Amino acid sequence: MRLMSFSTPAGPSFGMVSGQGVIDLGRRLGGTLRGLLAQGVDTARSFAGEAPDHALTAVTFLPVVPDAAKIIGIGLNYRSHVSEGGAGREAPAFPRVFSRWNDTLLGHDAAMVRPRVSTHFDYEGELAVIIGKPGRHISKAAALSHVAGYACFNDGSVRDWQKHTTTSGKNFFASGPFGPWMVTADEIPDPAALTLTTRVNGQQVQRASTGDLIYDIPTLIEYVSAITPLAPGDVIATGTPEGVASYRDPPGWLKPGDVVEVEISGIGTLRNPVVAEEG
Amino acid sequence: MRLMSFSTPAGPSFGMVSGQGVIDLGRRLGGTLRGLLAQGVDTARSFAGEAPDHALTAVTFLPVVPDAAKIIGIGLNYRSHVSEGGAGREAPAFPRVFSRWNDTLLGHDAAMVRPRVSTHFDYEGELAVIIGKPGRHISKAAALSHVAGYACFNDGSVRDWQKHTTTSGKNFFASGPFGPWMVTADEIPDPAALTLTTRVNGQQVQRASTGDLIYDIPTLIEYVSAITPLAPGDVIATGTPEGVASYRDPPGWLKPGDVVEVEISGIGTLRNPVVAEEG
Repeated sequence: MRLMSFSTPAGPSFGMVSGQGVIDLGRRLGGTLRGLLAQGVDTARSFAGEAPDHALTAVTFLPVVPDAAKIIGIGLNYRSHVSEGGAGREAPAFPRVFSRWNDTLLGHDAAMVRPRVSTHFDYEGELAVIIGKPGRHISKAAALSHVAGYACFNDGSVRDWQKHTTTSGKNFFASGPFGPWMVTADEIPDPAALTLTTRVNGQQVQRASTGDLIYDIPTLIEYVSAITPLAPGDVIATGTPEGVASYRDPPGWLKPGDVVEVEISGIGTLRNPVVAEEG
Repeated sequence: MRLMSFSTPAGPSFGMVSGQGVIDLGRRLGGTLRGLLAQGVDTARSFAGEAPDHALTAVTFLPVVPDAAKIIGIGLNYRSHVSEGGAGREAPAFPRVFSRWNDTLLGHDAAMVRPRVSTHFDYEGELAVIIGKPGRHISKAAALSHVAGYACFNDGSVRDWQKHTTTSGKNFFASGPFGPWMVTADEIPDPAALTLTTRVNGQQVQRASTGDLIYDIPTLIEYVSAITPLAPGDVIATGTPEGVASYRDPPGWLKPGDVVEVEISGIGTLRNPVVAEEG
């Protein structure tokens, strides 16, 4: 199943993608996608045969989970990205965790905002994991049973402010696209065998296999859940491979009018334009 | 006014401290303290003369704002704490921002949990700022008009995991006391003239003036609001002075049975025991 959050003039809802439309599950079940994840996504399967209520072109995409309690990012999790930062840079000895606030996130098609205070605005194509089953101290062996599904993520980063602290550079308002939908885990038998591609204005800038993660998804879930309980709807963005704007010569900073796409095989394509912050 | 969040067997609520009791504002106004902050705390003043509904000893204190959208921490914001980390350590060139998840927070009297994975559990007495008026790109000159009030904060930190990343060490479940209440800004004419004291088992371990902050409250609000909109109920924990456990010789790690108090003049005393994580 492909599950998504969206809004229409009637308000926010969530649903199941069907062809070029979406079956409105908010109307049928109430609540939010986070609530469905807590009940278990199988609750939605019985609606799969129904006719779509909305065309995908008629809804506004929201972040896959607009109200996640925890949005966890992982830095420097592909060797190719560690290396592009400079010769001799080493892979981190532990997962490099940071967190993002909900209002940093955007749905598919929404505009990424290059902030007023910087022009060093960068993309990071990533695979995001969405938690289904809650847990603390989850073992690697059990980790994938806690995953509800996967989505595309663009961990938009303001690089000069990121030098102050990771949290600063990763938390600018409306900087992180997350979508267009999640694909449930039953349809992704091996999340380490996906191809991640990022394009800017149609030109490929990143391409990697999710099998190249330094800390794989089970290891990330084990590490993070030693710190904090994971809950349905929590998100782990697993890190980006080489090819970001900041390490290009000259840097390929995102500018207003650019369009960024993050495509992951078996999931879909997350596409967002870039605008300048007003004012 | 002293405003607090609490729970009783009837459920969570919030109210105004009056003598040794609390006037239940949740019962009168509905919603949460965050909602009152959005309306403006003056909404509560007309209830000041009423009789308390609960004795303070009869309620369970919750974090001052249990549902903050953003809990923002600031690292290395007292010169004395920068220096105790080692000779030659310099003050940061920009505020060092991190964030905490809501479930890391605790009310007054609740037990700080030393996690299963570490014994390097440390206290950090801090002054917390609670936002009242929303805003983005708030100037230093306007900053204090966005503050609803102030509270005590104990930025409990797991130091070995903090070496992995600040986010990891600062986000252990039930590690950060926040309370017992907030004092509204009208009663704190100068938040840079408060005395902060931390005690472990009755023995003073930290003492400083909030005037010693490297980045003062207006500067922090200006910096953070350049990144993200601030909203009613958002929290900025302003950093800790010297005297933390990790730089003592030998280190004074918190252990089960210890009691930590953070006292700030004009605000009150936040007191929490330490327990070991179960399992």
